[in-house]
Amino acid sequence: MIGDPAGVGPEVIARALATGHVHKLSIPVLIGSAAAMERAVEITGASCSVRVIRSIDDLSDDPAIIDIIDSGAMKTSELPLAEDTVRGGEVSALWLDEMSALASGGAIAAGVMGPISSGSLKLARKVPSIVSPTPGESYLVLLTGPLRVAHLTDHIPLRRVCEIISPDLVALALRQIDGAMRNWGIARPRIVVAGLNPHAMGDEDREAIAPGVARARAEGIDVEGPVSPDSVFRQCVEGRYDIVLAMYHDQGHIAVKTWGFSGNCAIILGPSYLHVTVAHGTAYDIAGKGTADPAMMLSAMRTAASLAAGRGFPEER
Amino acid sequence: MIGDPAGVGPEVIARALATGHVHKLSIPVLIGSAAAMERAVEITGASCSVRVIRSIDDLSDDPAIIDIIDSGAMKTSELPLAEDTVRGGEVSALWLDEMSALASGGAIAAGVMGPISSGSLKLARKVPSIVSPTPGESYLVLLTGPLRVAHLTDHIPLRRVCEIISPDLVALALRQIDGAMRNWGIARPRIVVAGLNPHAMGDEDREAIAPGVARARAEGIDVEGPVSPDSVFRQCVEGRYDIVLAMYHDQGHIAVKTWGFSGNCAIILGPSYLHVTVAHGTAYDIAGKGTADPAMMLSAMRTAASLAAGRGFPEER
Repeated sequence: MIGDPAGVGPEVIARALATGHVHKLSIPVLIGSAAAMERAVEITGASCSVRVIRSIDDLSDDPAIIDIIDSGAMKTSELPLAEDTVRGGEVSALWLDEMSALASGGAIAAGVMGPISSGSLKLARKVPSIVSPTPGESYLVLLTGPLRVAHLTDHIPLRRVCEIISPDLVALALRQIDGAMRNWGIARPRIVVAGLNPHAMGDEDREAIAPGVARARAEGIDVEGPVSPDSVFRQCVEGRYDIVLAMYHDQGHIAVKTWGFSGNCAIILGPSYLHVTVAHGTAYDIAGKGTADPAMMLSAMRTAASLAAGRGFPEER
Repeated sequence: MIGDPAGVGPEVIARALATGHVHKLSIPVLIGSAAAMERAVEITGASCSVRVIRSIDDLSDDPAIIDIIDSGAMKTSELPLAEDTVRGGEVSALWLDEMSALASGGAIAAGVMGPISSGSLKLARKVPSIVSPTPGESYLVLLTGPLRVAHLTDHIPLRRVCEIISPDLVALALRQIDGAMRNWGIARPRIVVAGLNPHAMGDEDREAIAPGVARARAEGIDVEGPVSPDSVFRQCVEGRYDIVLAMYHDQGHIAVKTWGFSGNCAIILGPSYLHVTVAHGTAYDIAGKGTADPAMMLSAMRTAASLAAGRGFPEER
């Protein structure tokens, strides 16, 4: 899904596909506006041509051809650039639905969401149509080299996190993470749970997190914790664990964003299919210039291809 | 202050002083056990000799001589190695008192605390004698290259942080940080305050942090915030600010420890003198082997010398 047509999504996708790396791992198909992709190919000088296909059955696997399913929602004459528009929000939501339908039906193995704009989505009143992590149901997983972090809670006030954290919530998340990682090709995922309080020595660490971890261990999941939050992310970077379960948004996001490795992407764990998201935004300040770095998009595509095939996390390049 | 005599403190101090870098910036004097330092010099093969002095007036500035004030509290026959002891805790507390007395009296410009052992201090029932950060009074500042973080609160449960955070507490901390940094030689410190909640968009961000920041700004302090906690530390790494005021222990510690720059040290802001602490522990697993890396001790000594002289943070080496 190419993201908001006004952002850098089409450009980074064109440049990522032009490398040929994605075709070595998968047969990619785009969902979005063919006109937006044609403009991106021209802007970036990518050596590909855009071809509209009606169905997945028509896919070529020629790296020089960018196949796209374009349901015609966006007219060429109204193609926005570097600005939030109602139409940009409407088509973003529509294309996500189309991607979700294809993935849920098994026609595609994974979906990658290009950079969308919360501004456009607000204008179009489509914010609720975006998959958003919900404690006990779905989780944001950030991947950045060896540092992989699942978040028990997302956009929730810290005070509320302290209230809702429970053994049930922790055990539920651990089961879902363990199951997903096994599907992705990690035979025996080594999971670690971050504590909530300094040095993991507070009431919630003892009464909510530890019992949840114990329950998961009893079920055969290879999990440790709660571990001191200030040490656990560095331990993951150093390869001691495959993934950290963070208790709240900033715990994981501070680690990932401060560490600063650039080849990252995100997964929403919860939908029935593998839902990968590029880790940057629409970058309107450089949209249309052909200079946006495709590294994160390439990382998202390679990760989606590798995990969906059960081949584990892709090697760093 | 050489730290617990059983840890790597004496060794890293001997190796740090032997580089000669500390003498270029300051006239160092140790407080502790001469026997422990003699053992460390022998273990590390540092080309220095240990000399006991009675008072600061007897200090030499010869890098080949390690001057130490040894009040005789630790007998040579009872010198511990790589283990917690009651005596180790007792002398640690005593030496800290001696350092504090010298510094408060103006005889020394700054004190550096070597690695102490909480185990020994507990055995000796001396834990309360260690300077510990207290909201509204004293603050732990971690320094690691361009990433500098002061902590509004320290070892306090997250739930309690949400309760006690207030405009007063934020403004008080900002005044103390701004004043200290000016004394250290940073003419117009650029301070930023981290929010408490995701994207700094919660009740406490609006009602406690923002008014505290506004008050400090009105007093002429160059401060911004609250800024999204997941972005603010990276912005500091990139040089946009001189220091971040973090709202809680893990917010700052996750950033510093995950980023992983090794030349770090800590300052306790609050005592009347500059109180610097080495950023590692006693490392009993390698104590006595002469292999402990002196980089963090050297960083602590150079930072203490530079800041006490009002010359700003030392350049990275």
